[in-house]
Amino acid sequence: MNAVAVHGVGTSHFGRQPGRDLIALAEDAVREAFADAAVTGVDAVWVGTVFGPAGVAQRVLRALGVTGIPVITVENACASGTTAFLEAHEAVRTGRYGRVLALGLEQMSTAFAGAITPEPTDPEGRSGLALPALYAMAAARYLHLGAVTPEQLAAVSVKNHAHALHNPRAQYSGRYTVDEVLASRMIADPLTVLQCCPTSDGAAAAVLAPAERGSRGVGVRGIALRTGAPWNHRSPHVWGHDVVRDTAADAYAAAGLAAAGDVDLAEVHDAFTIGEIVTTEALGLVPPGDGGKAAAAGVTALGGAHPVNPSGGLLSRGHPLGATGLAQVAEVVWQLRGEAGGRQVEGARLGLVETMGGGVSVLDGNACVVAVLEAP
Amino acid sequence: MNAVAVHGVGTSHFGRQPGRDLIALAEDAVREAFADAAVTGVDAVWVGTVFGPAGVAQRVLRALGVTGIPVITVENACASGTTAFLEAHEAVRTGRYGRVLALGLEQMSTAFAGAITPEPTDPEGRSGLALPALYAMAAARYLHLGAVTPEQLAAVSVKNHAHALHNPRAQYSGRYTVDEVLASRMIADPLTVLQCCPTSDGAAAAVLAPAERGSRGVGVRGIALRTGAPWNHRSPHVWGHDVVRDTAADAYAAAGLAAAGDVDLAEVHDAFTIGEIVTTEALGLVPPGDGGKAAAAGVTALGGAHPVNPSGGLLSRGHPLGATGLAQVAEVVWQLRGEAGGRQVEGARLGLVETMGGGVSVLDGNACVVAVLEAP
Repeated sequence: MNAVAVHGVGTSHFGRQPGRDLIALAEDAVREAFADAAVTGVDAVWVGTVFGPAGVAQRVLRALGVTGIPVITVENACASGTTAFLEAHEAVRTGRYGRVLALGLEQMSTAFAGAITPEPTDPEGRSGLALPALYAMAAARYLHLGAVTPEQLAAVSVKNHAHALHNPRAQYSGRYTVDEVLASRMIADPLTVLQCCPTSDGAAAAVLAPAERGSRGVGVRGIALRTGAPWNHRSPHVWGHDVVRDTAADAYAAAGLAAAGDVDLAEVHDAFTIGEIVTTEALGLVPPGDGGKAAAAGVTALGGAHPVNPSGGLLSRGHPLGATGLAQVAEVVWQLRGEAGGRQVEGARLGLVETMGGGVSVLDGNACVVAVLEAP
Repeated sequence: MNAVAVHGVGTSHFGRQPGRDLIALAEDAVREAFADAAVTGVDAVWVGTVFGPAGVAQRVLRALGVTGIPVITVENACASGTTAFLEAHEAVRTGRYGRVLALGLEQMSTAFAGAITPEPTDPEGRSGLALPALYAMAAARYLHLGAVTPEQLAAVSVKNHAHALHNPRAQYSGRYTVDEVLASRMIADPLTVLQCCPTSDGAAAAVLAPAERGSRGVGVRGIALRTGAPWNHRSPHVWGHDVVRDTAADAYAAAGLAAAGDVDLAEVHDAFTIGEIVTTEALGLVPPGDGGKAAAAGVTALGGAHPVNPSGGLLSRGHPLGATGLAQVAEVVWQLRGEAGGRQVEGARLGLVETMGGGVSVLDGNACVVAVLEAP
């Protein structure tokens, strides 16, 4: 089995870009990744997308002159991009292909209007559990337990939007105050609009191949996927906590980490502020129940002990579903190569990527991917 | 690396079933495959679908009590089902998972009205090349070259509809004459409606695990995927011939066959009559240019030297895109276990599955999977 490294990454700009073709966005990402890896082609491609039309990947690749090689499109809800990354990793690890492209893409501005709605035939659909409402329930539970305050929720938004001031590819950024975040328009109580990821279009890509000594390739030290856990009514934890914790445990074991959360930075799935708080706890980056306090105290900010979402996260970069996981990978690769500019985590050696989502059927389609990457 | 076998298969009924939920159709297939394999669960699932809504696979599996395991949905146009089969095979071969379900599903009656239309932004879309028109061009070319006659084209339809008389799961069957086929409604000259696969809903599934001596598992002796070849203007062959030929060469090499096409039966992608003719030539089942003659002479009929589509093929069974490849696998498994009833190919030891399709963008999205299966 091969040790696997990421030899190049690229992304489009992120934002509402209905006037740009999805293929053009994906071209931007693949061209940059190919140039970064100093390659002009690959042996196979895995593509992650949720709403991308059938054949979209092949059209992107033809535009780049990449034809005649296996292309497999995967869908795994918000984790589609990292699922493509995981499958590409597996193909290189086992020697099935030598050099593989993982590509994520989504054009939410044309695919969907408003919040993603669950299937009306599912129990959660009948209950009106669109995704903002689902996360709002988790936030309400945390508030009820005294595990977070409204101000701590808002602190995640303040932090990530400030991080994004240093990320020219992000959709939004800004120096907000906690009061401004709390005063912004209510979407699903207690989550205001500045606590929700925006509708976004974009693409991201990574080139994977066997690790080479002396190269600038970023090693994939451990990676894991879990899927399919339904709502667990018997768990004391809110939606998503258990699957993130269990997937992380698999990834940490694969990476041989000394302790859970023993990484220098993490890009996590902050589709909503409560999501980052629950996830930092589930990943073991902070003690159980300390997610909100850590955000408010700057522990998870750039310069803090456990920087989370230095890119600005989904809250700032935007959340083009299939692209998100690979945009997270790109950020961690830049960080581990010391190329993250004003948002650089100094001396970062180990970085974590976590993506967790439900499908349109939020309760059945839980999928989580966690990866630990290592500096060259 | 493990030798891999198919330990159980199952399918739904095939046909226009808009009143049945896609999940119920898939349940039929998975329940039968689990019972056939004498298992109650698997370690991971690959699902093939083109138009299935996001999360559909997870909903199917929850209905069966299969939760908490990795589920990866793949899309590869008409080859989505066999791509799921190939990925499941790879996961068992490399030891990534012990027992894997490959599931294909599609509900064409609700997803689409009429022929699949290409993207209007693509060259083929601007040229009006819906899939029946594309196959009609290939047929017209063969007619022009004298490589086929209208009666030979019709003979494929006569043969496959007659085969389907013995397949209770098929959408259509019948004892047609060549004249009746030629007199049926014209869809895309020279292809009449009885020469085109019907709009169909259905699902099919297979359980894969390492081969065990003494079991009734059907071995996967060789399997290959090619994707992405665009229209080749420099090839003397019609659309699809080259990619089928090249993919088959890979599969034959993997299977260690003595000669191309050295199998006892084949289930091939006869979305249109010309498709079967071109494919039997590309696979080496008959000499180049003999596909039409072979069909008319009974060479590719049950009882002939090279039986093709004993199930009745897509022309009779119907073509629910994601389900098709796994329905072909199920048929070959039944044949190789001697369980195909009135359509049994006596003494069959080696069987071939071939699926080839374009995406909605027909020219960019060519994908082909060829597998050679072996009797227990």
